[in-house]
Amino acid sequence: MRFKAIVSYDGSNYNGFQIQVKGRQIQKEIEKAFKNMTQTEIKIYASGRTDKGVHAKGQVFHFDSDLPIEGNQFLLGVNKRLPKDIRLLKVVRTTNDFHARKSAKMKLYMYKISKKESSVFDEKYEAFEKDLDVNLMRNAAKAFIGTHDFRGFSKVSQDKDTIKTIFDINIKETKNYLYIFYKADGFLRYMARSITGMLIEIGKKRKSIDQINKVFETNDRSLAGKTAEAKGLYLMKVYY
Amino acid sequence: MRFKAIVSYDGSNYNGFQIQVKGRQIQKEIEKAFKNMTQTEIKIYASGRTDKGVHAKGQVFHFDSDLPIEGNQFLLGVNKRLPKDIRLLKVVRTTNDFHARKSAKMKLYMYKISKKESSVFDEKYEAFEKDLDVNLMRNAAKAFIGTHDFRGFSKVSQDKDTIKTIFDINIKETKNYLYIFYKADGFLRYMARSITGMLIEIGKKRKSIDQINKVFETNDRSLAGKTAEAKGLYLMKVYY
Repeated sequence: MRFKAIVSYDGSNYNGFQIQVKGRQIQKEIEKAFKNMTQTEIKIYASGRTDKGVHAKGQVFHFDSDLPIEGNQFLLGVNKRLPKDIRLLKVVRTTNDFHARKSAKMKLYMYKISKKESSVFDEKYEAFEKDLDVNLMRNAAKAFIGTHDFRGFSKVSQDKDTIKTIFDINIKETKNYLYIFYKADGFLRYMARSITGMLIEIGKKRKSIDQINKVFETNDRSLAGKTAEAKGLYLMKVYY
Repeated sequence: MRFKAIVSYDGSNYNGFQIQVKGRQIQKEIEKAFKNMTQTEIKIYASGRTDKGVHAKGQVFHFDSDLPIEGNQFLLGVNKRLPKDIRLLKVVRTTNDFHARKSAKMKLYMYKISKKESSVFDEKYEAFEKDLDVNLMRNAAKAFIGTHDFRGFSKVSQDKDTIKTIFDINIKETKNYLYIFYKADGFLRYMARSITGMLIEIGKKRKSIDQINKVFETNDRSLAGKTAEAKGLYLMKVYY
């Protein structure tokens, strides 16, 4: 039987989601909690990795189990055994053809920017940038929407397919915050943070909107803005 | 020359403020940062200790220095050398008779209770309690106001003076939170958390308001409610 799970985590103390790095990994912690609960090995398959320090409010993974354990029992039993900075929000039965990564149609990421210096309590959960021209950023965001080769706005190996489609970029402004929401059919490594970095440079009038197209034309990552810090980025939702 | 400093810290990863315990202490980190900046030993004197896991938005300390360094330079130089979960908010010159602990007239503590299960991001910064009767808690709070022997609502040695005056307890309710604000001339060890624990038990109808007076009459800590968790408590301000 296949299960779909939604998980939230504070990425601050982890070296990322997937087991390919040293140090604490989120996937390893979840699999350990499953093992502690069931005394069997349960492998989990996520919608994709998230990088070191990136947070998630709605990461999705699937796993298979023929144990006499229902979704809700997994939810309670695994959560009891997880560190407090990782929490399953939902575990439900799904069909056997569901695959957390391959079945994903769209992902929503959010980037959180504080306009004021962050307090010690918020410091790990947001970036801090002042004097951003939000109208310039909103105009610049349009240049990213659509199907493009995002090689210059990512950090991936040469053989990787870097064509992605961004459906929407929405910048919401409140008194103290800017939230940038990205909807795309997929995100390459560092892609959300590279685009955010470019938007920040444009918002600070250090780069012009034209330079987005130069990066698209040349695929030259060195022409893009600085990669924005991981701590402001949240995987919000995976759509199927 | 004497300086007064205001400091904010996330207490999650510390064993308390004062150098009397093993593990990471906030005072030690601050003194280390002063030493790294000035290459001299600067001892700091706080308004009082805070316990393991307790946070501060406005702890105060004083220190003496005859170096040619202004308050603002201390602020920047020390902050650069502090861990990210400790931050000076202000450093100003003060008179030589100012003493962070002895000159304090009143302290304001806040206890933060989430009515919904905390997210992984808020988990270290609030307690979670549901189904609290706030009117009962507000009525109960009145019994604590005034000058009392708070021995039964604290954990201190036998020879300690346990008479304190609570000026005000204000419970503010929002959609998702309860905030309990305590103003007193001083707080004994565990006092704010013991009173909060009692108010929570009363809000859950597990204890009656009468039992507050029983604790005052007998000084018997075992009759009081459970000590509320450290992570919900914040030292907000010290008044001089």
